[in-house]
Amino acid sequence: MKSWIESANKPESGFPVQNIPFGIASLKAGPDEDVRRCVTAIGECVVDLAKLETCGLISTGVDDFGPVFDKPELNDFMSLGNVVWKRVRTALIELLKEDGNSALRENGELRQQVIIPMENAVMHLPFRIAEYTDFYAGRQHATNVGTMFRGAENALPPNWLHIPIGYNGRASTVVVSGTPVYRPNGQLKAPDAQMPHFGPCKRLDIELEMGAVVGVSSNMGEPVTVAQADEMIFGYVLLNDWSARDIQAWEYQPLGPFQAKAFATSISPWIITRLALEPFRVSTPEREKPLLDYLKEPGPMLYDINLEVEMQSSTASTPTTISRTNYTNLYYSAAQQLAHHTSSGCKMNTGDLLGSGTISGPEKSGFGSLLEISWGGKEPLKLEDGEERTFIEDGDKLTLRGWAQGEGYRIGFGECAGTILPAPDIGSNQKGHRHEN
Amino acid sequence: MKSWIESANKPESGFPVQNIPFGIASLKAGPDEDVRRCVTAIGECVVDLAKLETCGLISTGVDDFGPVFDKPELNDFMSLGNVVWKRVRTALIELLKEDGNSALRENGELRQQVIIPMENAVMHLPFRIAEYTDFYAGRQHATNVGTMFRGAENALPPNWLHIPIGYNGRASTVVVSGTPVYRPNGQLKAPDAQMPHFGPCKRLDIELEMGAVVGVSSNMGEPVTVAQADEMIFGYVLLNDWSARDIQAWEYQPLGPFQAKAFATSISPWIITRLALEPFRVSTPEREKPLLDYLKEPGPMLYDINLEVEMQSSTASTPTTISRTNYTNLYYSAAQQLAHHTSSGCKMNTGDLLGSGTISGPEKSGFGSLLEISWGGKEPLKLEDGEERTFIEDGDKLTLRGWAQGEGYRIGFGECAGTILPAPDIGSNQKGHRHEN
Repeated sequence: MKSWIESANKPESGFPVQNIPFGIASLKAGPDEDVRRCVTAIGECVVDLAKLETCGLISTGVDDFGPVFDKPELNDFMSLGNVVWKRVRTALIELLKEDGNSALRENGELRQQVIIPMENAVMHLPFRIAEYTDFYAGRQHATNVGTMFRGAENALPPNWLHIPIGYNGRASTVVVSGTPVYRPNGQLKAPDAQMPHFGPCKRLDIELEMGAVVGVSSNMGEPVTVAQADEMIFGYVLLNDWSARDIQAWEYQPLGPFQAKAFATSISPWIITRLALEPFRVSTPEREKPLLDYLKEPGPMLYDINLEVEMQSSTASTPTTISRTNYTNLYYSAAQQLAHHTSSGCKMNTGDLLGSGTISGPEKSGFGSLLEISWGGKEPLKLEDGEERTFIEDGDKLTLRGWAQGEGYRIGFGECAGTILPAPDIGSNQKGHRHEN
Repeated sequence: MKSWIESANKPESGFPVQNIPFGIASLKAGPDEDVRRCVTAIGECVVDLAKLETCGLISTGVDDFGPVFDKPELNDFMSLGNVVWKRVRTALIELLKEDGNSALRENGELRQQVIIPMENAVMHLPFRIAEYTDFYAGRQHATNVGTMFRGAENALPPNWLHIPIGYNGRASTVVVSGTPVYRPNGQLKAPDAQMPHFGPCKRLDIELEMGAVVGVSSNMGEPVTVAQADEMIFGYVLLNDWSARDIQAWEYQPLGPFQAKAFATSISPWIITRLALEPFRVSTPEREKPLLDYLKEPGPMLYDINLEVEMQSSTASTPTTISRTNYTNLYYSAAQQLAHHTSSGCKMNTGDLLGSGTISGPEKSGFGSLLEISWGGKEPLKLEDGEERTFIEDGDKLTLRGWAQGEGYRIGFGECAGTILPAPDIGSNQKGHRHEN
C-alpha cells in the first residue's frame, strides 16, 4: 500500500500509510503558533486531525461526544475505544493512500492547511499521563541485575515466574522526547560509609523500555481478563526509565524504588497504535512454570519490534549504538501486566502508562541498561570516538529507536531522546554531609 | 470564639468556627440535587461556598482566575496558595462568628440558601487526587512489622533513621469515607506451598494514617526545603490504607507493595487546613541519628491530633474501639516527607496526597493495624460483643476518627469509614489453581 505523499513510500520511512500514529503538535510559527492539536504522521509530514475533523473528513461517529482532535492531548479520543480507533484509522488510511478517498489529495487549499512539514512542527507529550506503572518483565534484565546483587543462583526472585512484578512510578515527571533531564541529587551511601550524604547521583542510567498506553478505563472492583486488557490498550511508545542506581541502592528496601526513578521518564512523541502493530504479533516465551489462569493469554500478545539505543557525548561527532534488542525479549506482555494490575480490583484509567520493564537481549550487545552493559560499572564501554563510559556523564545524549519491519515498509516509533544536564546546585541550606563533589 | 450557629458551640462539636474545613457536597434532594459544590462545615451544617462567592461575601482576590468554589473539586482553590487560603478562611470566620460580619447572619433568605443541615448533604471526594504516595514514618509501626518479619534486632531497615521511606501508591482507587470496599482477590502463596493460587485475600487489614494534601505545585528539577514544603500543604485528612497482607507478602520483593494496596484507600471528606491546626504544632521526636540538612525542620511540623479506630461486625450492636493513638507518634512530618519527595527534582502537583504511614503508639492499645494488634494473627482481638478477630471479615465496618483538642473547642476531622464487601466472584476463566475457598 502506497501513499500519494511520496516521502511515506521510502522503505526507510517510519511513517508509511500503514502506520498512522497519533501525537500532539504545535506549529513553530504562524497565527496558530503554540496551539496544540492532535496529529498523525505520514512520511516527512504531520497531518492536522483537528482540521480534518472540522471539515468532516474524519469522525469518531460518537455524536454526543463532540470533537476530540481539537485538544492538547489524545485522552478524549483514546477513551472512546477500539471501534472508534478503527473507524478513524480506516478513514485516515483512505485519505492518505494512493488510490483512496480523494477529498484531501485533490483539494490544494485544504492540503496546505492540513499537511505540515515535520520541520515546522513541535511535538508535545501525546497524552495526559493519568498514572505511571513500571514493570520488570524482562527475564534477561532481571537475571542480570539479580546475578549482580544476589549471585547467579538467586538471580530471579521466587515470585518472578508467577507474577508480572511491577511498582507504581511517578506520572508528574513523564516528559516527551527532547526534554533535557537534570541529573538528580539524592541520598547516597557507600557500603563502608557510616552515614549517608546528599549529592548528585554518580550512577545515572537508562532503562530501554516500551510503554503501553491505556485507552479505555476499567471499573474499581472489576478485574479484567488478558483478552479484555489487550483491547483496552490504545498503543505503544518508546520509554526511557531514567534511573539513579546509587540512590536506588540505598533507598529501595523495603518498599521499592522511589526518588531513584522519580526525577524523569522520557517517552517518544508518537503513539503507535495496537492496530498498526497487528501484523507483528508474537507469542510470549514458553513458560518455565505454568501461569495462573488469570494470566493466560488467548493468543500472541507481544510484538516483533526492533529496538536500539544510541549514546553520544557532548563532544563526540557521531553517536555510538550501545544496544540492539527486540521487544519479544519480554516474559510478560502488556496485556498480562494490565490484567494483573486489575486483579485486586484496581481501577485503570484512560492515560495510564505501563512501562514494560527493561528489555535486554540474551547477549551483552543487547542489554538495555548501562548497569548491565558495564556489569555494575566494572567493564567500561568504549564509544566510537574513544571515550569510555560506565554510567551517564553530563552532556551525554541518549536516544532510543524502534521499528517493526514489514514487507517493504516499516512501522517506526520515531525516537525517544534526552540529554543530561548537571545536577541542580544544592543551596547552602540544602547541603548535607557531603564527602565529595 | 463562638458562632451564631449554636450547634458549632457545643464542646464536642468537631466543627466550631475555629475549624473551617473544606469539602465537596451535593444535596440529597431539590432542584440542585447532584450538583457538587465546595462547602465548609459549621456545627451540624454545611455552608455553600459557591453561593457565598457568587454574592461576593467571599473571594480569592485573584481577579484573573475566576470563581473557584462552583466546582466539583477543591483543586482550583488549593492551587492558589497560602495568602488566598488565609483570606478565604478569615472571611468565613468573620461571616460565621458571633460578632463578625452580619451579611449572612442577618439575611434570612441567603441563610436559607447557604446553610444546609448536614443530614441533607452528601459528601464526596474533596479533591481530584493527582498522585498518591504512601510513607512509612511511624517508628513503632516499622519496629513492630520489622520485628515480626526480621526479628527484633533487625527490625528497622538501615536507611529508616535517615530517609522518610515512601513508595508511590495508586490514586485511582482513593475513595471517600462511606464507600464500600470489595475484599481483593490476588496471588497468594503459603510458605510451604509449591505454587501460588489466586483467590480472596485472607489477611485483610487497615492502616491508620493521616493524609497530607498538597495545594501548591513545585517545578520539575527544583527541590524544595522543609519550610517551603510546609507552606505547600493545604491541609490534612484521615486516611485508611487498606492492605492485603497475604498478597503483599508474596508480591512485594523486590519492588515494593503493588496490588496489596491498590484496591482501595479511604479518606475522610473534610480537609482540615494547616491554618486551623497551627495552635497544635508539636516537634518531631528527638533524632537518634542526625538528619541530613535537607530534612532538618525549622520549627515544629507535627500536630497533636488524637486518633481512634472503631471496628463493628455486621451483627454487632455496638462498635469496639480497637486503637487510640496520636499523630505525634510519627518520626517524620509531612513537610519532611514532601521535601524528600522533591529531593530528586520530582515535580509535585496540586492534589497530590501523601499518606503518613501507619501511626502506632508505643502500646498495643495504640497500634494502628490489625497485623500489629493481633501480632501477625497470633493474638486474636476480642470485640465488645464477644466476637474475635485477627483480620477483617466480610461485613465489618472500620471507622477512623480524629480531633485536636483546644481549650473549650475541638478541631474535628469527622470520620473515615468503610465496610468490607465479599471479594468479587472469580469467573471460571479467571480461576487459578485455588486450593481453598
